[in-house]
Amino acid sequence: MIAATPEPPYYVVIFTSIRSDQEQGYADAAQRMLELARQQPGFLGVESARSEGLGITLSYWQSEEAIRAWREHAEHVAVREQGRALWYDAFVTRVARVERAYDFARQA
Amino acid sequence: MIAATPEPPYYVVIFTSIRSDQEQGYADAAQRMLELARQQPGFLGVESARSEGLGITLSYWQSEEAIRAWREHAEHVAVREQGRALWYDAFVTRVARVERAYDFARQA
Repeated sequence: MIAATPEPPYYVVIFTSIRSDQEQGYADAAQRMLELARQQPGFLGVESARSEGLGITLSYWQSEEAIRAWREHAEHVAVREQGRALWYDAFVTRVARVERAYDFARQA
Repeated sequence: MIAATPEPPYYVVIFTSIRSDQEQGYADAAQRMLELARQQPGFLGVESARSEGLGITLSYWQSEEAIRAWREHAEHVAVREQGRALWYDAFVTRVARVERAYDFARQA
């Protein structure tokens, strides 16, 4: 699903990743992190896709403060450590400020 | 592949899309746009993934001016019109300024 975000400005965390061959615990942890993120103050939405080994997850947030609080959430910190230890061969996390947005939807 | 981007700040165009059932011409046009984007001044890299109908393409740029020039590139304009007419049921384009980035790579 395309996230229904408000008018800019708002923030996005761009998480681009290459998974390891370790599957154990990954799907449950990913699902749990998604549920937990949705409950955080300032969470606006999420979009995710993976193909040919490259995964992209975009989470949208009202403010940098909301991103900082989510980054420091104890359960999130613990799962990130597991991610580095087990589930990912490489990743980049980028924090960006959305300045403009344009959308298109086909008329039915 | 994860794009090898420089130290922030730089810019990202986040293109999130839902494809239509029209395949004709799409793959060739997507490939051509990727080749053409790589040749533009200020292009830094691209990351792309698609699953379960949702596609995400991230293109990274040195400046807003570089993004504007690419948006106005005549061939790109024409292909975007085809995209709205044929290939996409919905999309959102977001332009954002990358403020911070963190990376991880497993030690061999």
